[in-house]
Amino acid sequence: MSQHIVVIGAVALGPKAACRFKRLEPDSKVTMVDSSDLISYGGCGIPYFVSGDVSDASQLQSTSFHMVRDAKFFQNVKDIDVLTNTRALSIDRNKKTVKVQNTLDQREEDLAYDQLVLATGSRPKRLPIPGADLKGVFTVSNLDEAMAIKQGLADGEVEKAVVIGAGAIGLEMAEALADLWGIETTVIEVADQILPGMVSRNMACMAQCHLEENDVAVRLNEMVQQLEGTDRVKKVITDKGTMDADMVIMAVGVTPNSDLANKAGLEVSTHGAIVVNERMQTTDPHIYAGGDCVEVSNLLTGKPSYFPSGSLANRQGRVIGTNLAGGDAKFEGAVGTFIIKVFEISLASAGMSLKTAKAEGWDALSVFVSQFDRAHFYPEKGLMYMELIVDRKTEKVLGVQGLGSMTDAVFARVNAVAAILKYGPTTTDISNLELLYAPPFSAAMDIVNALGNTAENVLRGQNKLIDVDQFAEWWQDRAGGDAVFLDCRGWGNAKPFAEKYPDDWKSIPQDELKQRMDEVPRDKPLVLICNTGVRSYEAQLNLRQRGITDTYNLQGGMATVKKWGLNL
Amino acid sequence: MSQHIVVIGAVALGPKAACRFKRLEPDSKVTMVDSSDLISYGGCGIPYFVSGDVSDASQLQSTSFHMVRDAKFFQNVKDIDVLTNTRALSIDRNKKTVKVQNTLDQREEDLAYDQLVLATGSRPKRLPIPGADLKGVFTVSNLDEAMAIKQGLADGEVEKAVVIGAGAIGLEMAEALADLWGIETTVIEVADQILPGMVSRNMACMAQCHLEENDVAVRLNEMVQQLEGTDRVKKVITDKGTMDADMVIMAVGVTPNSDLANKAGLEVSTHGAIVVNERMQTTDPHIYAGGDCVEVSNLLTGKPSYFPSGSLANRQGRVIGTNLAGGDAKFEGAVGTFIIKVFEISLASAGMSLKTAKAEGWDALSVFVSQFDRAHFYPEKGLMYMELIVDRKTEKVLGVQGLGSMTDAVFARVNAVAAILKYGPTTTDISNLELLYAPPFSAAMDIVNALGNTAENVLRGQNKLIDVDQFAEWWQDRAGGDAVFLDCRGWGNAKPFAEKYPDDWKSIPQDELKQRMDEVPRDKPLVLICNTGVRSYEAQLNLRQRGITDTYNLQGGMATVKKWGLNL
Repeated sequence: MSQHIVVIGAVALGPKAACRFKRLEPDSKVTMVDSSDLISYGGCGIPYFVSGDVSDASQLQSTSFHMVRDAKFFQNVKDIDVLTNTRALSIDRNKKTVKVQNTLDQREEDLAYDQLVLATGSRPKRLPIPGADLKGVFTVSNLDEAMAIKQGLADGEVEKAVVIGAGAIGLEMAEALADLWGIETTVIEVADQILPGMVSRNMACMAQCHLEENDVAVRLNEMVQQLEGTDRVKKVITDKGTMDADMVIMAVGVTPNSDLANKAGLEVSTHGAIVVNERMQTTDPHIYAGGDCVEVSNLLTGKPSYFPSGSLANRQGRVIGTNLAGGDAKFEGAVGTFIIKVFEISLASAGMSLKTAKAEGWDALSVFVSQFDRAHFYPEKGLMYMELIVDRKTEKVLGVQGLGSMTDAVFARVNAVAAILKYGPTTTDISNLELLYAPPFSAAMDIVNALGNTAENVLRGQNKLIDVDQFAEWWQDRAGGDAVFLDCRGWGNAKPFAEKYPDDWKSIPQDELKQRMDEVPRDKPLVLICNTGVRSYEAQLNLRQRGITDTYNLQGGMATVKKWGLNL
Repeated sequence: MSQHIVVIGAVALGPKAACRFKRLEPDSKVTMVDSSDLISYGGCGIPYFVSGDVSDASQLQSTSFHMVRDAKFFQNVKDIDVLTNTRALSIDRNKKTVKVQNTLDQREEDLAYDQLVLATGSRPKRLPIPGADLKGVFTVSNLDEAMAIKQGLADGEVEKAVVIGAGAIGLEMAEALADLWGIETTVIEVADQILPGMVSRNMACMAQCHLEENDVAVRLNEMVQQLEGTDRVKKVITDKGTMDADMVIMAVGVTPNSDLANKAGLEVSTHGAIVVNERMQTTDPHIYAGGDCVEVSNLLTGKPSYFPSGSLANRQGRVIGTNLAGGDAKFEGAVGTFIIKVFEISLASAGMSLKTAKAEGWDALSVFVSQFDRAHFYPEKGLMYMELIVDRKTEKVLGVQGLGSMTDAVFARVNAVAAILKYGPTTTDISNLELLYAPPFSAAMDIVNALGNTAENVLRGQNKLIDVDQFAEWWQDRAGGDAVFLDCRGWGNAKPFAEKYPDDWKSIPQDELKQRMDEVPRDKPLVLICNTGVRSYEAQLNLRQRGITDTYNLQGGMATVKKWGLNL
């Protein structure tokens, strides 16, 4: 049975669904419709195109074998018709037609469909502030806009840029502007950390420190109120002051494009995303939808969630293609994952952050471990920092985060935990997670296993922790004399601090602790410190054996304090 | 309740179990016994010590904070007694004592224990051939032997070396000898591929090609029969010839050290490994064992299996430490994982190879995909090669393998699949595996997802494949004229082959196929060829639509043919 499939939107999910369907039903006809003539490109590559890492926009639109995926390509290679510069205006579900309009000559026509796919994607939010429509103010929406940004940079029009929003796209754009173009770049974020809702404050602080080392200024807790300029933007006015800027990038999130679905009477969520079942069908079984315009099940909470991601779009596209051809494929949902390159570091997460987990009602805690990414004796290695979020009651793992150098080391660990999250692992599963081991790649007791062990020790009351955030607070309040900082490293490491702060910083190396137990202050809480948190844990146990229990092991140790940019 | 724990063996599992136990029960006493005075070292680091990557043996024995883990360290830092140069002779399970002997003064004593840990490890097999005990013949057993090997190299005694056995340790040693010391190195393997039983012939061929590019000679299907020399080894005699060698490394596998357990009446398997339950208890509940001397459950077959690995040893050690202190920790088993650096490539596997899966009774097949490790438009990237082994009936995933450059890209993918193997995933779970995505780390449709998709397409009869192994055979037999090789790439890629082999190699680019359908030979099987297997799959579908069904898509494409070292 030959059928006609109409696909609205030809960037990521649309072409994937169309091609998969055609491979299964080559005798059927597919028509794709897109309002642009730039189609089927890797939108996630825009920051790398702007930076110059990707020299030409056509590379984002090419196959891995260097063919440009334009309308002609789809015609010749895939036997799929594409109507470019064509906007979908409305759907008549009874007649099973879509009214489309050519944006060049305004001509309208009705396309009849047997089954329809909505791949309408999302659009970037624009702050509703004065000056938002000035020249030089951009969002990161599509390839046309990316080319305009790059042209502005290439023309030398930009000396100072402001990025509004410190989410993933904002940070990628900030790096693109500052790194290769050498533009004085400031990121303004209304929340109290970068990547809010995505990573912990600890991780965010370390990444922010690295951004600042690379000359990107970061301003938190600040709200942009107005953009000023005559022909083009010149100033950014916030609730805290005024700043010069020749270019402003708004990266404050995206909104699903669901108007067409909404007007057609399909169910749309309160957040504006199209509602689909596991087969990616909308409330009309002849209409499928996927990608940035839908919400899917969050496999950790069981609730519908919005995960805009080119990777999910591709996989959902395949599911839709299969089902269009009479198959029964399912997209069960997602746990939510994220990875970003920030100059020379990588930062990743899967599942929930501690804050999100608490907001969702879990009695959650997080543990933090820093450790080498390879065998500690292997010459090339780097320190990694990871955090595990677990539920106290069930010991279920709710999320994981990692930060490290720009190898795939963080990617490898967070990938592995992300992969098992949907199976509901406990800390024991993380302790025993079977990761590949050889000294050039990992440690015999890998950081992931160490995370599981640490979580278990904390849950059993065996290890009592504070994190760097809390440490920073206690350290600033040290004049109050409410705590003593006990350095458990060798004298060589401890000396500079012990000499600079003789009242607050005591040095007793952990291996001398048993002999020097009478030197330990017993009247105040002790903050135990070493390089990564391993020796201070050992010291905590030594002290507990002697009845000294009001102690706090600084998780991640001085390595983390340093990465945080905290200057003692 | 204070107790006395005796631990026999102080390399990997022994110290881990001892330290974990002491952290939980600091008031109890632990005595570790080891026949050497070099203890608690990273044995997996030996090849990197021999190569010179790790300059000093003490680095293998150090903590990450540069303390050497000798008897004094365990005394001061961990409050654990160590008897070095002390051999355990026998166990009296009724009296709960171990008879030990000091190897320096031969003095014997009985150590009373409440609970005992056997961490006796394994020993390398020695071929029972004449000359095996000549000077210059080594195994890779312990740090003492490693130092002797390195001393021999440093003294300039070695110009030509032979490594017997192409398993992981053999290959790591071959690289160590050839790379930094520039020694003419030959690996001799009795099986028909390197890493037999560990990876597929395809993966093995690609890795072998890379070894040969780096001046390591590989001889397969060859059996060493004798070593010759007067004071030291000079010649290696095999069933195929004679070879000069100043040094011979035997790397033909390991045997678990279970004599002590056997003599004490504990259950030992037919393969010589100590039998333990999930709590790592032997058949005597007061005696625990773990690491290279035991077998554990294979989570894929459900059968006991032998997985000698420093990583498993560490995790089992923690389980034992917990249980010694009255806990109830479990080590459920392993799926078996493996990763190796071979000069500039990494090669990894998890679970079963196709051969092993078939031998275990599965109706298994494997699919092979080559793809970039990052977004194809991202400037720094490399081709990766992966294989998925699945059961036809249940579509269950049985194993995975990967080969790529010396980044962590292969590690990251095989890690993620390894992590879920115990949950019994199907090809659909691999198609939808939620990997982290950003262009500097991965592709929107990552190679892992593509593996799942390909497996599904093959299982549904949608994609009909041949692998490079079979292609090589058909190509060699091409004079018989039993097949035509149809190149689906652009003319620029196809030209050199089409001109060199006009009778056998036809060029029709996939995007011209519809127009040139009448040029397609219909009387012979067609081998469809492109760079990686994507366009040839598309061509296969185009041909099927026109009724041409006797076609075979070369999986992995010309990229794999080239990596294989096959010269057309």
